[in-house]
Amino acid sequence: MSFDKITDRRGTHSSKWDKMEKLFGVSPEDGLAMWTADSDYPTAPCVIDAVKRAADHGVFGYSWEYPEYLNAVAWWMKTRHGWDVDPNWVLTSQGLGNAIALCLNVWSEPGDGIVIFTPVYHEFALKIRKNNRQVVECPLALAGDQYELDLDDAQSRLTGNEKILLWCSPQNPSGRVWTKDELRAVANFADRNGLLLVSDEVHHDLVYPGNTFVPMAVAAPDARSRLVTLTAPSKTFNIAGQRTGNLIIADSRLRAEMHNQLSKLDYAPGMLALAMITAAYSPEGAAWVDEQIAHLTRNKALFDEGINSIPGVSSMPLQATYLAWVNFSGTGMSHEEVAARIRDDARIAVSPGPGFGTGGDGYQRFNLATQGARVEEAVTRMKQAFSDLQ
Amino acid sequence: MSFDKITDRRGTHSSKWDKMEKLFGVSPEDGLAMWTADSDYPTAPCVIDAVKRAADHGVFGYSWEYPEYLNAVAWWMKTRHGWDVDPNWVLTSQGLGNAIALCLNVWSEPGDGIVIFTPVYHEFALKIRKNNRQVVECPLALAGDQYELDLDDAQSRLTGNEKILLWCSPQNPSGRVWTKDELRAVANFADRNGLLLVSDEVHHDLVYPGNTFVPMAVAAPDARSRLVTLTAPSKTFNIAGQRTGNLIIADSRLRAEMHNQLSKLDYAPGMLALAMITAAYSPEGAAWVDEQIAHLTRNKALFDEGINSIPGVSSMPLQATYLAWVNFSGTGMSHEEVAARIRDDARIAVSPGPGFGTGGDGYQRFNLATQGARVEEAVTRMKQAFSDLQ
Repeated sequence: MSFDKITDRRGTHSSKWDKMEKLFGVSPEDGLAMWTADSDYPTAPCVIDAVKRAADHGVFGYSWEYPEYLNAVAWWMKTRHGWDVDPNWVLTSQGLGNAIALCLNVWSEPGDGIVIFTPVYHEFALKIRKNNRQVVECPLALAGDQYELDLDDAQSRLTGNEKILLWCSPQNPSGRVWTKDELRAVANFADRNGLLLVSDEVHHDLVYPGNTFVPMAVAAPDARSRLVTLTAPSKTFNIAGQRTGNLIIADSRLRAEMHNQLSKLDYAPGMLALAMITAAYSPEGAAWVDEQIAHLTRNKALFDEGINSIPGVSSMPLQATYLAWVNFSGTGMSHEEVAARIRDDARIAVSPGPGFGTGGDGYQRFNLATQGARVEEAVTRMKQAFSDLQ
Repeated sequence: MSFDKITDRRGTHSSKWDKMEKLFGVSPEDGLAMWTADSDYPTAPCVIDAVKRAADHGVFGYSWEYPEYLNAVAWWMKTRHGWDVDPNWVLTSQGLGNAIALCLNVWSEPGDGIVIFTPVYHEFALKIRKNNRQVVECPLALAGDQYELDLDDAQSRLTGNEKILLWCSPQNPSGRVWTKDELRAVANFADRNGLLLVSDEVHHDLVYPGNTFVPMAVAAPDARSRLVTLTAPSKTFNIAGQRTGNLIIADSRLRAEMHNQLSKLDYAPGMLALAMITAAYSPEGAAWVDEQIAHLTRNKALFDEGINSIPGVSSMPLQATYLAWVNFSGTGMSHEEVAARIRDDARIAVSPGPGFGTGGDGYQRFNLATQGARVEEAVTRMKQAFSDLQ
C-alpha cells in the first residue's frame, strides 16, 4: 500500500516536520510529527500526473477561466456528498484560513462578535482576534464519549452584537459528524440571531464507514440566503501547500459581495493548483480517497486500541477526520505533566488541547494521517511514557 | 533556439490566447495574441525541473519558512541589479496586482489620491478605482522619441490629498529605463509631497544592451523610510500563472504594517511557486534570461524595422520590456479605424493605448515575447493591413 510506504519529509519545507522542534521541542531526528493537519503520504497519482503534464507544457503564463475546475468541484459535491452545486457558485480563495479572514472582513466590522462552538479548530479564534473581532465561545456539551450541541446555553451567551457563526462540520478536533437534525438546529439558531452562517466543511471527505456527512446546504436549504460553505481538497488530497480553497455561495447577493472583495484584492488562484484540483476531483481521485479512508480506518483502530489501554486515557471515537482527540484527564496529571511526557518521553509533537478553546483542557490532538508503522511506533512510545499507570 | 519553437497555447487556460476572441474579436484560429504581458515560450529548464522534482516527492502538505527562496531573491537582486537586499526584507504576495491592492489598503484610505504618471500599466488606475481611491494622473512629456518626466506639471496637479505615488520602472508601456537622476527626482517629489513611494519594478530583468536599470532603492537610498519595491519573476520567467510577487521593504515599520496585513488575511505563498522561483533565481536561470534577452533583441529589431516602414507609424525605441508601444497618430486615422484594421485585417489582438490613461490615444501596445516567426508574421500582416499608406 502506498499509504504505508515511509516518506522522509524532513528538510522539505514541511511545517509538520521542519517546525516541530522549534514549536514543540521535539527533534525530527527521532521524533514523530503528529500535529498539524496534513498527511505524510503523497497525494493521488492522478494529481501528480497533472503536475507532470504542466511541467511538460512548460508555459506558466496568465491563466483565465477554468470551467473544468468549477465543473469538477460541482461533480465532486454531487457524487460524494449529494449536493447540487451550480459551478457558478464556486469562488476560490487562498486556502480556508484566507477564506475565513475574507468572510470576517466582508460581513462583519471590527468589534463585532463571532460565534464559535468550542473546542474547535484553533485558527478560528486566532483569525477572529487578528482581525479585531470578538470571540464568542459557546462550549459543546460532552454526552458520553461524544460532543453534543447545547443551543440553550449558546443562546444565553449572545449579546446581540454577533454577526457571524463560524461552524465546523465534520468537527475538528473531535471528528464528530453532525446529524441532519443538529445541522438544522444550528441553521435555525443562526437565523434566529441574524447570523451569517459560515460552514467550514474541509474535513467532509474523510468520513468513516457507518457515518454520513451531510453538507449544511443540503440539511438546511432554507439557510441559503445566509450560508457560505467552505470546502477544499487540501486535507483530502494533502495539497494544503498549494494554498487553495473554495467558497461555495448559492445566494447571489452574498456571492457578489465576496466576488467584489476578491476582485479588489486582485486574487486569482494559481494555475497549477487548479490543474491539480481538477485532476483530484475525478473518479480516479475518488477511488484513491476510498483507499485512504480504508488506510485511516486501520490507523484509527490501531491507535485507539493502544491508547485506550493506558489507564485514564481515552481517544474520542472518530466519525470523521484523521485527528484523534485524546482525553488525558482520567490520569489525574496536570496538562504540563502530560505534555512533558509526550514531548520528552514519547518524543511526539501533538496539538495541545487548550489551543482549541474552552473544553480543550486535558486533551491532546494526534494526527493519524501517516504510515501504519508510525502509528504503531507512536502507540508503543505512549504506552512506555505512561507505563507507570499500568 | 527554444525561444523560437512554436508552442500552441490554445485551450491551455491561457488568458492571452483563450480570451482574445471574447475581448478583442480576434479568433485564435488564425489570429496572433500580442496583448497581455506573458510569453509564448516555456520557462527556463531549471524551473521546469523544480516542478518535476516536486511531482516526484508527491507530498504537498503545509509548508513553512523557505529561507532558500528569500536568499535566492536577495542573490538575484545583488548579482543582477547591484542591490543589497536583506532576505528579511522580502514579503510575498499573490502577484503584483495583489501587492498593489494591499499597498493601497494598508497605506491609504478610500477617497485618497494616488499619483500615477501616464500612460502607464492600465492595472494601476483600475486597481485604484476598484479600491475607491482617486486616480491622480500626471502625464509624461514626449521629448523626441522617448518619454520624460515633467515634475513641475505634476506638482501643479496635486491637491494635498494624495497619499501614494505608484511608480513604474522600467516603464510599461514605453519600455523606458529611467536614469539615476530621474529616479532621484521622483523620490524627492514623493518626499516633498509626503507620498509613500511604491515602485513597481517587475520588468527590471528584461533590459536591452546599452541600458542600465537602477532599482529605486539604489538610486535614492534616502527614500528608504517611504519606499516599497515590488518585483516578481512572473515576466522574466513567464510564471505569472503561479501568482506570486514580492514586496521588498527595508523600513521595519512599513514592513511590519504589511506583514500584519498579510497575516490578518492568512496569506502565504504556494509551495510549488516558491520552489520554482528558488530554481529561477540561480546562475542557470540567469543564463536563460540572457538568452531570452538576445531573443527579444532580435524580435524587437525585426518588429521595429517592419512596423516603422509603414508611413505614419512608429514604434518607440525600447530600452527594456518586450512591450512595443506603437504610435499610429501619424497615419491621420481615428483610433477606431486603426483598431479595426489591426483586428479585422491583421487579425492581431493588441492592448489599446487609451487603456493606459492620458497620453495613450493614438497608440497600441504589441507584445513581442513570442517566437520570431510570429513577429515576422505580425509585421507582414500589419504592412498588408496598412498597405494603402505606402
